Amino acid sequence: MPPSWLILDPLIESWLLEDIGRGDRTTQGLSSITNQPGQATWVSKQVGVVAGLPIAQRVFRILDERIHFKATVSEGETCQVGQPLAQMEGPLDALLTGERVALNLTMHLSGIATLTRHYVEKIADLPAQLVDTRKTTPGLRILEKYATQVGGAVNHRMGLDDGVMVKDNHIAAAGGIGEAIHQIRDLIPYPISIEVETETLEQVSEALQWESDIIMLDNMPLDKMVEAVKMIRHSQKYVKIEASGNITLETIRPIAETGVDYLSSSAPITQSTWLDLSMRIK
Amino acid sequence: MPPSWLILDPLIESWLLEDIGRGDRTTQGLSSITNQPGQATWVSKQVGVVAGLPIAQRVFRILDERIHFKATVSEGETCQVGQPLAQMEGPLDALLTGERVALNLTMHLSGIATLTRHYVEKIADLPAQLVDTRKTTPGLRILEKYATQVGGAVNHRMGLDDGVMVKDNHIAAAGGIGEAIHQIRDLIPYPISIEVETETLEQVSEALQWESDIIMLDNMPLDKMVEAVKMIRHSQKYVKIEASGNITLETIRPIAETGVDYLSSSAPITQSTWLDLSMRIK
Amino acid sequence: MPPSWLILDPLIESWLLEDIGRGDRTTQGLSSITNQPGQATWVSKQVGVVAGLPIAQRVFRILDERIHFKATVSEGETCQVGQPLAQMEGPLDALLTGERVALNLTMHLSGIATLTRHYVEKIADLPAQLVDTRKTTPGLRILEKYATQVGGAVNHRMGLDDGVMVKDNHIAAAGGIGEAIHQIRDLIPYPISIEVETETLEQVSEALQWESDIIMLDNMPLDKMVEAVKMIRHSQKYVKIEASGNITLETIRPIAETGVDYLSSSAPITQSTWLDLSMRIK
Amino acid sequence: MPPSWLILDPLIESWLLEDIGRGDRTTQGLSSITNQPGQATWVSKQVGVVAGLPIAQRVFRILDERIHFKATVSEGETCQVGQPLAQMEGPLDALLTGERVALNLTMHLSGIATLTRHYVEKIADLPAQLVDTRKTTPGLRILEKYATQVGGAVNHRMGLDDGVMVKDNHIAAAGGIGEAIHQIRDLIPYPISIEVETETLEQVSEALQWESDIIMLDNMPLDKMVEAVKMIRHSQKYVKIEASGNITLETIRPIAETGVDYLSSSAPITQSTWLDLSMRIK
Amino acid sequence: MPPSWLILDPLIESWLLEDIGRGDRTTQGLSSITNQPGQATWVSKQVGVVAGLPIAQRVFRILDERIHFKATVSEGETCQVGQPLAQMEGPLDALLTGERVALNLTMHLSGIATLTRHYVEKIADLPAQLVDTRKTTPGLRILEKYATQVGGAVNHRMGLDDGVMVKDNHIAAAGGIGEAIHQIRDLIPYPISIEVETETLEQVSEALQWESDIIMLDNMPLDKMVEAVKMIRHSQKYVKIEASGNITLETIRPIAETGVDYLSSSAPITQSTWLDLSMRIK
Amino acid sequence: MPPSWLILDPLIESWLLEDIGRGDRTTQGLSSITNQPGQATWVSKQVGVVAGLPIAQRVFRILDERIHFKATVSEGETCQVGQPLAQMEGPLDALLTGERVALNLTMHLSGIATLTRHYVEKIADLPAQLVDTRKTTPGLRILEKYATQVGGAVNHRMGLDDGVMVKDNHIAAAGGIGEAIHQIRDLIPYPISIEVETETLEQVSEALQWESDIIMLDNMPLDKMVEAVKMIRHSQKYVKIEASGNITLETIRPIAETGVDYLSSSAPITQSTWLDLSMRIK
Repeated sequence: MPPSWLILDPLIESWLLEDIGRGDRTTQGLSSITNQPGQATWVSKQVGVVAGLPIAQRVFRILDERIHFKATVSEGETCQVGQPLAQMEGPLDALLTGERVALNLTMHLSGIATLTRHYVEKIADLPAQLVDTRKTTPGLRILEKYATQVGGAVNHRMGLDDGVMVKDNHIAAAGGIGEAIHQIRDLIPYPISIEVETETLEQVSEALQWESDIIMLDNMPLDKMVEAVKMIRHSQKYVKIEASGNITLETIRPIAETGVDYLSSSAPITQSTWLDLSMRIK
Repeated sequence: MPPSWLILDPLIESWLLEDIGRGDRTTQGLSSITNQPGQATWVSKQVGVVAGLPIAQRVFRILDERIHFKATVSEGETCQVGQPLAQMEGPLDALLTGERVALNLTMHLSGIATLTRHYVEKIADLPAQLVDTRKTTPGLRILEKYATQVGGAVNHRMGLDDGVMVKDNHIAAAGGIGEAIHQIRDLIPYPISIEVETETLEQVSEALQWESDIIMLDNMPLDKMVEAVKMIRHSQKYVKIEASGNITLETIRPIAETGVDYLSSSAPITQSTWLDLSMRIK
Repeated sequence: MPPSWLILDPLIESWLLEDIGRGDRTTQGLSSITNQPGQATWVSKQVGVVAGLPIAQRVFRILDERIHFKATVSEGETCQVGQPLAQMEGPLDALLTGERVALNLTMHLSGIATLTRHYVEKIADLPAQLVDTRKTTPGLRILEKYATQVGGAVNHRMGLDDGVMVKDNHIAAAGGIGEAIHQIRDLIPYPISIEVETETLEQVSEALQWESDIIMLDNMPLDKMVEAVKMIRHSQKYVKIEASGNITLETIRPIAETGVDYLSSSAPITQSTWLDLSMRIK
Repeated sequence: MPPSWLILDPLIESWLLEDIGRGDRTTQGLSSITNQPGQATWVSKQVGVVAGLPIAQRVFRILDERIHFKATVSEGETCQVGQPLAQMEGPLDALLTGERVALNLTMHLSGIATLTRHYVEKIADLPAQLVDTRKTTPGLRILEKYATQVGGAVNHRMGLDDGVMVKDNHIAAAGGIGEAIHQIRDLIPYPISIEVETETLEQVSEALQWESDIIMLDNMPLDKMVEAVKMIRHSQKYVKIEASGNITLETIRPIAETGVDYLSSSAPITQSTWLDLSMRIK
Repeated sequence: MPPSWLILDPLIESWLLEDIGRGDRTTQGLSSITNQPGQATWVSKQVGVVAGLPIAQRVFRILDERIHFKATVSEGETCQVGQPLAQMEGPLDALLTGERVALNLTMHLSGIATLTRHYVEKIADLPAQLVDTRKTTPGLRILEKYATQVGGAVNHRMGLDDGVMVKDNHIAAAGGIGEAIHQIRDLIPYPISIEVETETLEQVSEALQWESDIIMLDNMPLDKMVEAVKMIRHSQKYVKIEASGNITLETIRPIAETGVDYLSSSAPITQSTWLDLSMRIK
Repeated sequence: MPPSWLILDPLIESWLLEDIGRGDRTTQGLSSITNQPGQATWVSKQVGVVAGLPIAQRVFRILDERIHFKATVSEGETCQVGQPLAQMEGPLDALLTGERVALNLTMHLSGIATLTRHYVEKIADLPAQLVDTRKTTPGLRILEKYATQVGGAVNHRMGLDDGVMVKDNHIAAAGGIGEAIHQIRDLIPYPISIEVETETLEQVSEALQWESDIIMLDNMPLDKMVEAVKMIRHSQKYVKIEASGNITLETIRPIAETGVDYLSSSAPITQSTWLDLSMRIK
């Protein structure tokens, strides 16, 4: 399910205004188009995982509530070359004015879902799950994370406020993992989880001892990662383990096989390119 | 020069709030960090073209005006692996809170500038120029177009209002190129240029006759493009010629050699991936 | 067609709130009026050109969607004294609360359309066209330019971004017309037109040579203007010619007869007064 | 004193963005202008009453805080042709970008102040005072009412919430003046004044009886107005008397001589035209 | 009647977003709930005066327009323990997501209406009326004053702009009551009332002499208050009298019996606690 | 540390505008006050815990940056009757205009901190901690939760997005605790904690089995609560225990003695009244 319209509607309006500016000179200039009925189909020109159609539908509805938009594939479905993704009908001028914003968003999100799916498929038979990061395009986090979820990943924290991540700089500033966790635990809403970034087994051990909720194994060699996982499982504590750093389509499987719970990677978002879709007016 | 702060400041604030949400639990939870002086360096982990540092500087300034940020490379400069891009100092907690938003933007824009540069270099010795399109990430058009410019491209129209583009659907709806131009010319601000998308030499001829300001040769084979250019130049009219469709790193040079003035491609934006940068706290 | 509601709705809401403040004490205080059905007619008390009724309709709709508003004259039509312009029915309290904002806007816009029409009629049989300027009331540009169009004028650029205007200060700062055009052409979106303000024939010649898209003849005596037009037409270049400065109801015709394409004047907006309309409740 | 910046700043930002759009193509395109120091003077081309300079100053400051703007006449002062009104210095590009918005506002407000002054001077030696109405340009009420005050008028209520005005429609709907006042008095904040519009002496008498705070004599012939004033003064009640309807430069004085306290007219705003000012760059 | 939705809707949206943040993880996470039909009842767990149901209804409607909400008690009605206040049906997930915001507002406003009613009942048989003050929770003034009105009080001025209140500091700064009133009367919209805060009979006399519209007797002993009332009534001037300071459930009656017109107290708002309501899903 | 100014500044501006409306008629009307230097002290008229001074300081700074505000007590300090809390100096008119908003907020927040402290002191020597709830005044959650923290409580989740709370309705809809947790865990960001509301020991056992992160014991009798705590601790799982329902100043201690980790209560916010503070101008 896409995020609440209460959150998305102001964004969608701002995107339409970004494109329309002071008016769509071309379609508004064509009086023979105004309010003429029109029909259009969206077609994929590439194989990929579709994400964003419900939001594209909303883009058209906000532009002109007379537009009916019907997705013909589900979110997360893989589309083929030439496959129709959606049918829409309504005033021709509105269809032409809204086309670019709706397509831009869907092409971008589908590109993310597609690359995410490639990563996820590599570890589909393993218990480990792919998670995203905070490396997202400014202004689009909630939707880019929606797209990774559509692609098969699990979301990591959405922002700086719904999860704590203690990194080396925090540890250094506080004077140790224990001190950092102690200070933070005291001030945050109590249901918030604390994750600690570790690079050595000593740090893993310290994070365990101070009741870290999540332990990130950052850029560890595979063998050290295996040891770290063993140490943590052995502690009997309920701690989630996240591997991070250098996760590529090649490395993801061996890292997942170390037994970690999650693998975090920014690649599905930062390395994705747009899925090529087009709109055909009938 | 980046776009006016009057335009960007509200965007920057919204991006910071997108990440911060109700508060940066980690740094705000670490009382030993609060208001401590800190220093950081941005370093590139890839070769690429840098774009976005003045905006990154503004991100930090809006977050905390005590932060001093000094770019050590110019916009558009090619950076090497390991090269420092910027030095900053100010409250450590603010540096940590603002890091991700500032980096995300710069990595994204630099990725675009880098790919743009690859395209531009292919035709650097020819008179034709690369231009961008309206395929931009929703909410970021003005900055993504800033990045293509930093990379060496020329901007096409910014939105639906500062240029007219008559496509096949418009032509069909109006009943011909002449009729479409006639209707539109009558209603738009008079300095706005009219561009007509053509696929055949007949259309080119018609567009010429009706005083199109720009003629786009869309997806034409090279030999037909050469003929179209000849026809247009021959007319002695002051008409700009834009080639469009299937412009890749391989095809860009032969297309440019047909003698067109501009080559429009969405690839520098839609096919770009982020340039890998990182921040190191001292 | 009026500008997109996406653009106007936030303005309309702000205007209603400007008047309503914390509540319409009079109609809200009258419990016997609340939700009572009402009917009203708008009547003109002056002869003039009507502009703004679709926006007035929207004002009432945003205030209370139960109001039905039906314009009985078309935009641009000349109304007579006592002529009904619109019929509306809906909750009486909403009609009374919205009356002032809707009327204020329509009276202001109709005043502009009326004065514009006076100017336009003077040159109706000549090819030259009247254009507006950027002298518009802050916050109302898009609607005031809509009103000049309804009155029969053509719009000039809408803002600083959809057209370039090189004035004497720019020329002086750049060190000449050629240098100014050269610098600007390099940095702007390529479909944007460049207009150069000229006061002498030497400047006209220079502007021609450097491929100015539009040449403005600013405050030139009629005979010099005739010469300038001849020089430009002679060049065979596709350059639009705009006359500017001291365009009054008396001077507009002789200036138009010099053969320029456009005459720009701020008077239709800055010298207009409101058309007197009133609302009668039945 | 102009209205609070808390109220005006968002308006000023929206006006600048209305003009700048996606960027000032001309000055941003001229790299030789960027950040160059500049100086400018504002000069009046007409005799009139100046209003709006403090807001013009703020416009420039919001655009670029490096601009120093010094008004050389006071608000409300009458300026002569050729008289300098303000000196400013700062980055040349910012001066050029902000010029139009700042001038547009000041020319509009000064036009209002000037016409207001003409009205006020007609009754300067009488106790009656000129007041404005709610006929103001949408979005500019607070500033247009500031301008009438600068011109010498007194403000009437600012909106529908800081004063009650019972008109014939309200009276009809409630079933009489007494009933209307009774209902309203019960529901409004108690310091709010109630004004009743009257057209006959019977209505004046009824309004008096029901403790109206202000009685408006609407479109009454002079002799009836004299009688009405006598009746009200005779009652010994503390009631303010406002004359309304058909107040022109010719009628204002005889109406004022009837002994009313206030004369309300929309003309100083709706019949005003802009005062011609210009900016000269040195 | 609650305030206009034009005013309240943006507030309601901000409250929903305050609670929802980036999404209601619980109900959105429960796919078996999504779009399931649901029914709920609001029940009171305390005796009190109900205020806010129309706004609660709007909260649900803004969240999801499919929700039907039917209040079963009227605003201002006293509810009993266990009494149902409203029935609603619609998508179960939307009912659960909106519950807290809608209840929080209603519980808070009903708490205010309840305490207001206690005060009002003490003086129900006397002509004096209870009025509120500007001591209101930031962001909620218009609704908290709506609640005091529902509880039986009369509103005082809504803000700093719809009434003048001259306090000791103003008097001292101006150099006397007369001078203060004189300066202020000259600059404010003429229908605005002027209230003067007095602590001594000398001040009352001075306020009377300078035509204060309202005289506040601030913290006066009962006998002095009686004298002040007598002095004011004796003057035959139409002046409203407001008692202020130390108005409690114990003192309100004797103060009202002095003959003042209004008693202002912040207690109904600042000393109120929430009325306990709950929502039961069927 | 109070929440980020990026979050609070827009709220503060909206609160000032709520009070100021179209202008502070009283102080703006007093020309003898304008820009006069002034000094003021805030004094407590009650014993209580102070919260909100840094935000009050910001209120004045946003209104007029020339105001210097110096708190003389720390957040969370207990103040005595008559104790000065802050000194401020700056333009007298700005001090008077900002007084009410700044005081209203501080009085409200200090009232919450004060009542929170009363609760917290009852269990100061026990390991259990008091936590707040989502019953907060609409628009003020982030600050009211700041105030409970200043008073000594720990924050619960801030909204619907940074923690999951599975209530009986969710359990019923999903068909059991296990099914509900399973569905939710699959869709939420993985660091988000899941809390399950239980009323019976069977539910506690089920919540334990399905890896609930937090178990709420809702309205359980003390002896059953003791058993539940024992069962959970016995499981060796890392589960936090929260007691909820009917937590008063009388019951809080015995409930805390059952060994739960947290006690959640809305009372510190919903049952608090304002701490009485006043501003004295020198």
